[in-house]
Amino acid sequence: MNRLNNREKLLIEGARVVHKHGLSATSVRDITTAAGVPLGSFTNHFPSKDAFGLEVLERYRSRSEAEVQATLLNDQLRPLDRLSAYIDSARDFLNQNQMCDGCLCGNISAEANEHSDEIVDRVVRAFADDERSIAYCLWAAVEAGELPPDTDVEDLAGFVLSSLQGAFLVAKVRRSPEPVNRFKRVLFARLGTGCPEV
Amino acid sequence: MNRLNNREKLLIEGARVVHKHGLSATSVRDITTAAGVPLGSFTNHFPSKDAFGLEVLERYRSRSEAEVQATLLNDQLRPLDRLSAYIDSARDFLNQNQMCDGCLCGNISAEANEHSDEIVDRVVRAFADDERSIAYCLWAAVEAGELPPDTDVEDLAGFVLSSLQGAFLVAKVRRSPEPVNRFKRVLFARLGTGCPEV
Repeated sequence: MNRLNNREKLLIEGARVVHKHGLSATSVRDITTAAGVPLGSFTNHFPSKDAFGLEVLERYRSRSEAEVQATLLNDQLRPLDRLSAYIDSARDFLNQNQMCDGCLCGNISAEANEHSDEIVDRVVRAFADDERSIAYCLWAAVEAGELPPDTDVEDLAGFVLSSLQGAFLVAKVRRSPEPVNRFKRVLFARLGTGCPEV
Repeated sequence: MNRLNNREKLLIEGARVVHKHGLSATSVRDITTAAGVPLGSFTNHFPSKDAFGLEVLERYRSRSEAEVQATLLNDQLRPLDRLSAYIDSARDFLNQNQMCDGCLCGNISAEANEHSDEIVDRVVRAFADDERSIAYCLWAAVEAGELPPDTDVEDLAGFVLSSLQGAFLVAKVRRSPEPVNRFKRVLFARLGTGCPEV
């Protein structure tokens, strides 16, 4: 039971440190110190810092995949309202700390040269998954007549994915959610619809 | 003379290491090793790693400010051609290494929690400067009739700045310039003009 608890503590508190300081800058000692467990306990639960990083990423993604389900993939909502809710929910999550920690996947991307192929591939897959979910939502918008039939859905989905990452990045260095709000305002204006609730 | 040379070596080779691995992950020893100068030589030239980082940033910005002058602020070119040339020149510079190093300002933003206010403020100022230059170009496009008079220039400039950073970030983790090309394609399509040369 204590074994399980230490593993949980490492993942919960370690994830906070990794999110705040970056996976690359975080040592195993930083993780065990944050979790309040002995240094040696780490290797009882994780074969390497990479393995730990991958599990932190999986948990981070579980949360955001649930948000994607509740927003982009939620057929109960009007398509562009889903896109709006998706952007808002991501912003609100990151804004718990004035945007200062940024998106974990974006942070790891910025230090991609420091990481194993496994970590990098996991982030690439996360972005590809989100891009597909955005495309699903945009196709629904086309079908519902909220976007014109000749909409460049695949291109637009990739554009939204990367532009949102950029808004998070600039929001992080400016310590303000305004770049995300502006991204949303301009995006919806350029889609030819008004911007919901910004 | 040797004194000057060591300083130059530190700045040139050190900047490469910082750009590749991140300012936070780079130690003074990494910098002197890359420059092939004695460890002690660093403090002869720089009072701190922060002071070194600031000078690396200044030099990086000198290069990109020259590009901004030649593109966004170049009144000899048609306004939207300037914006196109600006995106291309930034992409081509970063693509010398398959986009793997990313934008130095973006990298520092992603690790903003690790840096002094001076470093963070320098990046914030760099983004603000680029945003103003993009806005200058967009106002010229409005005046030239390339964009409609009711264009949301200030918002759009901030959107372009952050979205381009996002495209660089996703390009970095995907090791491909395609996210930047797609950003440009969608941007120009949404501005209601064709996309030059992508």
